[in-house]
Amino acid sequence: MVAYEESADIVFQNGIVFNPFTCDWIREDFAVRDGIIIGTGAAYQGRKEVDLRSSYVVPGFIDAHVHIESSLLSPYEYARLVMQHGTTTVIADPHEIANVCGTAGIDYMVRAHQTLPLDILIMLPSCVPATPLDECATHLTADVLSPYIGQDGILGLGEMMNVPGVLADDPIVWEKIPLTLIRDGHAPYLTGSMLDEYIASGLQSDHETCVLEEGREKLQKGMYLYMREGITERNLQTLIPLATPCTSSRCCFCTDDRHADMLVTSGHIDDCIRKAIEYGCEPEIAYKMASLSAAERFRLDDRGAISPGRVADFCILSDLNNCTVKATFKKGTKISPNQWNPVQNEISQCPFHARIPSVQEILIRGRGTARVIRIQEGQIGTTAEYTQISGEDIPDIKRDILKAVVVSRYHPERIGVGLVRGFGLTNGAIASSISHDSHNIIAIGTSDDEILRALSTVIKHKGAMVARSDTKECCLPLSIAGLMSELPYENVHAELTNLHRITDACGAIADPFMYLSFLALTVIPEIRVTTKGVFDVNMFSHVPIFTDT
Amino acid sequence: MVAYEESADIVFQNGIVFNPFTCDWIREDFAVRDGIIIGTGAAYQGRKEVDLRSSYVVPGFIDAHVHIESSLLSPYEYARLVMQHGTTTVIADPHEIANVCGTAGIDYMVRAHQTLPLDILIMLPSCVPATPLDECATHLTADVLSPYIGQDGILGLGEMMNVPGVLADDPIVWEKIPLTLIRDGHAPYLTGSMLDEYIASGLQSDHETCVLEEGREKLQKGMYLYMREGITERNLQTLIPLATPCTSSRCCFCTDDRHADMLVTSGHIDDCIRKAIEYGCEPEIAYKMASLSAAERFRLDDRGAISPGRVADFCILSDLNNCTVKATFKKGTKISPNQWNPVQNEISQCPFHARIPSVQEILIRGRGTARVIRIQEGQIGTTAEYTQISGEDIPDIKRDILKAVVVSRYHPERIGVGLVRGFGLTNGAIASSISHDSHNIIAIGTSDDEILRALSTVIKHKGAMVARSDTKECCLPLSIAGLMSELPYENVHAELTNLHRITDACGAIADPFMYLSFLALTVIPEIRVTTKGVFDVNMFSHVPIFTDT
Repeated sequence: MVAYEESADIVFQNGIVFNPFTCDWIREDFAVRDGIIIGTGAAYQGRKEVDLRSSYVVPGFIDAHVHIESSLLSPYEYARLVMQHGTTTVIADPHEIANVCGTAGIDYMVRAHQTLPLDILIMLPSCVPATPLDECATHLTADVLSPYIGQDGILGLGEMMNVPGVLADDPIVWEKIPLTLIRDGHAPYLTGSMLDEYIASGLQSDHETCVLEEGREKLQKGMYLYMREGITERNLQTLIPLATPCTSSRCCFCTDDRHADMLVTSGHIDDCIRKAIEYGCEPEIAYKMASLSAAERFRLDDRGAISPGRVADFCILSDLNNCTVKATFKKGTKISPNQWNPVQNEISQCPFHARIPSVQEILIRGRGTARVIRIQEGQIGTTAEYTQISGEDIPDIKRDILKAVVVSRYHPERIGVGLVRGFGLTNGAIASSISHDSHNIIAIGTSDDEILRALSTVIKHKGAMVARSDTKECCLPLSIAGLMSELPYENVHAELTNLHRITDACGAIADPFMYLSFLALTVIPEIRVTTKGVFDVNMFSHVPIFTDT
Repeated sequence: MVAYEESADIVFQNGIVFNPFTCDWIREDFAVRDGIIIGTGAAYQGRKEVDLRSSYVVPGFIDAHVHIESSLLSPYEYARLVMQHGTTTVIADPHEIANVCGTAGIDYMVRAHQTLPLDILIMLPSCVPATPLDECATHLTADVLSPYIGQDGILGLGEMMNVPGVLADDPIVWEKIPLTLIRDGHAPYLTGSMLDEYIASGLQSDHETCVLEEGREKLQKGMYLYMREGITERNLQTLIPLATPCTSSRCCFCTDDRHADMLVTSGHIDDCIRKAIEYGCEPEIAYKMASLSAAERFRLDDRGAISPGRVADFCILSDLNNCTVKATFKKGTKISPNQWNPVQNEISQCPFHARIPSVQEILIRGRGTARVIRIQEGQIGTTAEYTQISGEDIPDIKRDILKAVVVSRYHPERIGVGLVRGFGLTNGAIASSISHDSHNIIAIGTSDDEILRALSTVIKHKGAMVARSDTKECCLPLSIAGLMSELPYENVHAELTNLHRITDACGAIADPFMYLSFLALTVIPEIRVTTKGVFDVNMFSHVPIFTDT
């Protein structure tokens, strides 16, 4: 029998290894066998030995809350990209794909968990549909979710967005909470006794915090705080003062939503660490939050540190404060994402019943005081504007009032029309099959013809992002559930650049697809458009375009 | 429907409340309904309101590792005593009672969990018998333990003392480790690659650490460190420098073994906190270790802080740095231990087959070089001494060489005899049914007659501690499994004082029963006496008294 000290497959020598238990850096060797760290210190010999030459070594990064769908990438391409940035585990809530494909969407992510080198661990979507108004493939009730509990790769219940349902003791919500011991919350701006009640209901974390005092209250009341740095929501600079040695075990990083282009240009959790340090966080606290703290929060005793018995997930850094990842190791093996073999993974079923509307169907008739959705730059909230207009004058490019059309994925008869202001488009149209949370097909444009053409391209691909000018059309097909592309991330990044080149040329504001994707989201004030027309969030009901009809 | 803020049974107002999440003190109210904290802050009204008048309030204390049996008290009396010191939860390993009663002993503690106001949460004894040499009621194999997993009150697997078994892949050990996710270790002086292997096997904590660097290594390698302050092992002063804001979530307090007299005179976890602060620990770190850190280690999300959704276990302090507990609240109700109703709890079966030996059976025949067990003051280790002596000259009071007799609880035919030096007794005898880990009946004395009389009293009571001088005998009956008294703790304390008064008068060293209780423990070097006679720990076998036989 081989002595324990000599049983390693590989020994990594002379690293300066970050220890998240004590927040120290320790010059030491560590030994790996079968992907597991069997020990640390000088005693080990292995069949292979690697001299790390005093490089900084940190445990692999963990994203505490992410929707992979938001990257626009397949899980395979997502993994290939983020692992280069040091990420070895993500806690994924497949909320988007579950909306459009039901359990087939969850199963798709479970297979990604089973087949990819990135550890994709799944929190079950708790809120499908997101509201009683939202359309979706299947209602994910407790009965539908419960067979997943205990399955390999399933960690717990994802962000419980239905705060009113929790506080009103809605039985549909309350049947889900006891399913599992790990439950993520979602409690933007919730404070005081409502927050107390929400926490006492069993929701344990929040990643929606935008305000320092809000974060402090949540920490003090026992919530895990996932500091988010996503595309639209960037909370790190505000919240990072809350991460102290004492609180560090209860703070994590998360990205929630990052498009491929942000992942390519800024990075992933490495970007969170980099920014946290830039904003004044001690590097040791940041590296702990990115590893052990997240592992502990999700009861993943098998990772989060370079210590005996844990998986050998780690990164070699070329710059400590700038968090420059030189190499990522998963289960002791260096990740070479450009040499991966493609992984086959198909969604078993995904309804797509969208139909191209006729010109008649998107016509706005009448005149008078119209309700116009005013988008707000840098925000997903909208305001209602009331404007005199006639149906024939739409779109009114001078006043930047454009038509928005929403076509249901689920019900071919449902087509809604509204008015929107603030996109700035002077010609062409944009359309997309990403439209939270139902992910119906949505378009805005400078003429009915452009709108119908853009919609037609999206529907032809069973999902896509399309931008049209009067001279060209660019399309990023989203063949995976109309949410994600099958293309390599480099191509997706290039296509996104092309799409934005067209929208820029047409005079649109930056990131018009982002605003487009939230235009139908009925839970965020103040006015929206759905497959049933204009929706007043404050009244929580559909309303006509013209106030006097 | 009553508003959430008005639904409290009781609101505690104007406390200065310790927050272990952020290590802050916050002046706030907190509201309790059905024993649970429903919220904190100024919003609450209750049917009853209590003004805490700026008193310091801290979460109820948790002992991370204790053998209640060592208190000599029934669980009922133990609870009555330690709750006055602020303890609201103990993590108990019923190792002793399980040795002598098997599963009936575990069941006894489970019933204590079910019936007492103190939360007694159980770690299943992992090592019964403690060694292949030890006698016990039932071998607690994985098959015997597994029905307990998942039962209310069962947390995990208790201290895995069989370090050689772990490292040698002993299947009897390895069948137990996967039974549960929470597993306590026991790794005195273990370091380097042996410690790595032990940790990688799945053992997560240690409470046996005596040396600072040993503790640091264990923390760095991912073990939870329970700093112990018991009767014989006092490690707090040595280890407390390891408790920092960063490590505080992985450090706890434990007492392991404390007799009733130490609990009465020094206290319980309050004593650990007091000493930790005295030894230089920040009070906030100490109070966190005593509450949230232990709760988190054992995945007890329902306690460890005064925050929404957790049980209202807390203490009011009259002195913060001295940790003077003025009142303890369990589930929101003030503990008044002197008004408790007695709780019925009987052990269903507990074999006790000890037989009073004859004079012939304890006779030492022969002469020559004898092996003498030399006890070491302040330690449980012994050394072997080799002395010329004749059987007829025993006991040799001048040279302080006394006879030791061990009578089996389990096998009436087994009676072992040896020689011991260092007790200092000049007349009388002491005997006890507490003798780790088999808890056979053990006696030492200044004449065979005194020894037999002392043994006889122990056996008559089916377990007791007995001290005899030439003029009187004192007996503390241990009617619960021969390990614990049914008397009120005040009486037990008084009887212990009486026992020590006699042993003092007979010239014995301080705490002779402590040394007596370890005299048969075959795992601690260097020489012992068991029901089969003298045992050489280094050779790990029984040997004759005289070296030349």
